[in-house]
Amino acid sequence: MEDTTTLSVTKPIRCIVKLGGAAITCKNDLEKINEENVEIVSSQLREAMITGSSSRKVLGMDWSKRPGKSGISCDADDFEDQNLDSSSFVVVHGAGSFGHFQASKSGVHKGGLNKPLVKAGFVATRISVTTLNLEIVRALAREGIPSIGMSPFSCGWTTSERNMASADLSMVAQAINSGFVPVLHGDAVLDDLQGCTILSGDVIIRHLAAYLKPEYVVFLTDVLGVYDRPPSEPNAVLLREIAVSEDGSWSVVKPTLEDMKKQVETTVAAHDTTGGMATKISEAALIAKLGIDVYIVKRHRRHVSQNVRKMLLLGPPWPNRIP
Amino acid sequence: MEDTTTLSVTKPIRCIVKLGGAAITCKNDLEKINEENVEIVSSQLREAMITGSSSRKVLGMDWSKRPGKSGISCDADDFEDQNLDSSSFVVVHGAGSFGHFQASKSGVHKGGLNKPLVKAGFVATRISVTTLNLEIVRALAREGIPSIGMSPFSCGWTTSERNMASADLSMVAQAINSGFVPVLHGDAVLDDLQGCTILSGDVIIRHLAAYLKPEYVVFLTDVLGVYDRPPSEPNAVLLREIAVSEDGSWSVVKPTLEDMKKQVETTVAAHDTTGGMATKISEAALIAKLGIDVYIVKRHRRHVSQNVRKMLLLGPPWPNRIP
Repeated sequence: MEDTTTLSVTKPIRCIVKLGGAAITCKNDLEKINEENVEIVSSQLREAMITGSSSRKVLGMDWSKRPGKSGISCDADDFEDQNLDSSSFVVVHGAGSFGHFQASKSGVHKGGLNKPLVKAGFVATRISVTTLNLEIVRALAREGIPSIGMSPFSCGWTTSERNMASADLSMVAQAINSGFVPVLHGDAVLDDLQGCTILSGDVIIRHLAAYLKPEYVVFLTDVLGVYDRPPSEPNAVLLREIAVSEDGSWSVVKPTLEDMKKQVETTVAAHDTTGGMATKISEAALIAKLGIDVYIVKRHRRHVSQNVRKMLLLGPPWPNRIP
Repeated sequence: MEDTTTLSVTKPIRCIVKLGGAAITCKNDLEKINEENVEIVSSQLREAMITGSSSRKVLGMDWSKRPGKSGISCDADDFEDQNLDSSSFVVVHGAGSFGHFQASKSGVHKGGLNKPLVKAGFVATRISVTTLNLEIVRALAREGIPSIGMSPFSCGWTTSERNMASADLSMVAQAINSGFVPVLHGDAVLDDLQGCTILSGDVIIRHLAAYLKPEYVVFLTDVLGVYDRPPSEPNAVLLREIAVSEDGSWSVVKPTLEDMKKQVETTVAAHDTTGGMATKISEAALIAKLGIDVYIVKRHRRHVSQNVRKMLLLGPPWPNRIP
């Protein structure tokens, strides 16, 4: 049972972008942001979101004090007569090397807030993921994207036995209506039955997609899309199209796998408390079921960036379409 | 007109603590936290909140990677069989040298989100105040306080012509019921009529006090209390008791000022977008009108800390009582 308020989004949502944890952090280096990737992604998102932004000066919105400087750099005059109209985007990011360690060390995803270790882990997890969120918001703001960090916990999102119980989207809608780009993230949340759990960025995306009805959803990952087995393994095959059936189950349409009986292998890293690739594909499939196109694309090196930019600017067609 | 949901706080709220911006930051040094003060205040709050905490090891809840370390320090075993029961506190902090510059430079408090400068300033202000919030949450967590950062913007708090329009406290109440200490802060918020404004920590305190009905409210400031003029001036007189009348206006009861016609002088710093001391006293008076004792106390040097600790532990009596 879901408790959602009536939404009134005054302009259509163009796109919900998921920045995969592995794409924005150094996944094997604890609490380390992949600065280069974040900068590239932010710049691409700016070009996609803000009309005519590629031809003019970037109007940075992170006016924090820089290390070694005494003042704050903000040239107010630059903002005069500028049109900052942006298409409506929502950004959701994963945790990567932030939060997962704290959550799995304490078992936050399994609940039990009466245990001191779980309670402490809940606090530690939220500190870690909100640290990442702040850095992503700052990176987007430096590119002139009017980004607003919004934590699912603070937004009042809760679960019931790890399924979404309450997700009030009214504040997200209000932020969009006011011309901002909400930036949400995987978070530790309260759970009606087990006390607490981890709400993954992918589950958040599905709920946003269901109620905001964007034109399309993009998952930016650290690999070229979805493979039939871990992409680090030899002979891993890139899946081009996945069909989703009514009951939410999915199967590979393109390419035709040689051995049709062979299952797609999914692995879950030991420290991943959000279910790994299987959960991610299922979530993407559930979005596709809503009639919203889903694209799983790579964001890794600078030379593929033109494709990502084109896709964000123009939308379909794009190869890794689901379904 | 206020829109508040029915609250069910399962245990009574002992205290709402306001950490004044001037007490936790270096007010004249841009975006600089007063590390020493924050550490002392956090330690005192731990002793006040957590039963028997003074006699045992502090179980830190900020498991972030420390600079220069490769791993995360968290000894899970330490948490076994520990009772972390804490009295119900809520912490609200001001902005001090965070946020004010960004807000006043762009005029966020005056509204007008259609102006690019205001929109950018809104983003910049939120980045600055959430940076401070994260640091305060981490400082409290390092002392073993189960602190949870909650931004008024994300909580869905909005204003109407700068007065509180909507303040859903249900998530704050749920966090308290789950044994956490919510940490809120002055924030940039949306405004029904003027587009946006700044919601000060003091206005937040009043709303929390009205609906959570704490036993008492403490304002920790950088001066010994409320003076009849800026305390930096010679002959400034410390006011011991302020009476609040039905209409919310206030007057000094103790000491008897020599010249009764003399008004209490209040000043507003050029970069203070939240109204200065006059607003602060009015907000405290409005809390007192609810029948809740208000204490304005100093937190500055280590040698006065015993008094603050005693007050937090034992509550009244305390000298600077309003009314």
